[in-house]
Amino acid sequence: MQDKIVIGIDPGSIMCGYGIIRKERGATIYITAGQIAMPKKQPLSVRLKYLHEGLSEIIHTYQPDEAVIEKIFFAKGIKSALHLGHARGVAMLTASMQDIPVIEYSALEIKQSVTGYGHADKKQVQHMVKAILGIKQDLSFDSSDALAMALCHSHTMDYKIHTPLVWS
Amino acid sequence: MQDKIVIGIDPGSIMCGYGIIRKERGATIYITAGQIAMPKKQPLSVRLKYLHEGLSEIIHTYQPDEAVIEKIFFAKGIKSALHLGHARGVAMLTASMQDIPVIEYSALEIKQSVTGYGHADKKQVQHMVKAILGIKQDLSFDSSDALAMALCHSHTMDYKIHTPLVWS
Repeated sequence: MQDKIVIGIDPGSIMCGYGIIRKERGATIYITAGQIAMPKKQPLSVRLKYLHEGLSEIIHTYQPDEAVIEKIFFAKGIKSALHLGHARGVAMLTASMQDIPVIEYSALEIKQSVTGYGHADKKQVQHMVKAILGIKQDLSFDSSDALAMALCHSHTMDYKIHTPLVWS
Repeated sequence: MQDKIVIGIDPGSIMCGYGIIRKERGATIYITAGQIAMPKKQPLSVRLKYLHEGLSEIIHTYQPDEAVIEKIFFAKGIKSALHLGHARGVAMLTASMQDIPVIEYSALEIKQSVTGYGHADKKQVQHMVKAILGIKQDLSFDSSDALAMALCHSHTMDYKIHTPLVWS
């Protein structure tokens, strides 16, 4: 992977996690991670505006080259899928509006890449994310999940560069 | 209903219908209706950007006071709900970014308001929309559905003004 900045985005209907890493001369460096909270009591259109504005500011500040988001195949139900879809659509649009390509990986790929086990739980993912990036402070699960997405992309890109395989 | 311009928005994952009416001294006037097509072969993040840019331009041109979108309770499946959620989230955000309140009505309320029958099909809705607004030319179902949303809001607002009921 060439030197680049990657943002992982984990959108939910009331909270959106993000995590940013930089790949520099082969080393992976932690930049920042956090959450954008949406005001619960506001109408959905207003909550989505908060999400968009918060994420726009973060992207504008850290200037990532690529954004990573989790591929979604299922949800707890139709209602959850609809809620998740709204936030995910806004997150993708926000990256796209600043001309940042959005890459998708499945939860299995992300967990496999970070922990070596596709069905790892959030605690295991968090433990490995902190170990890989040398993070001492506490992280929310939203933040560590988002960092895991960015790390997964970083690992996958390394593999693409170092193997002669044609990757489709 | 005071004089105002209302846009109805009917977002889908590859096509988004819109319809704009103006309420002026009690009369309801058709302004425009159409569809925003998203490029099928592009990644989702790019399709959502097309939707956002197209809808932003329409809102900027016609300066609606309020936007109406259909309330969604169910979809054909999780995948449909996710797809629909993405487009719907982007449509709501786009209105919200221009400080336009987004009002939601159920399909039942919209059909009931326009045709007098909550389970009317698209053809019946289209027929009544054209009759109410005196539209002679052909309309796509996306356009007539969007106009029906705007009309439903216009009727509901009339009712709110002319009845002493407290509406919550």
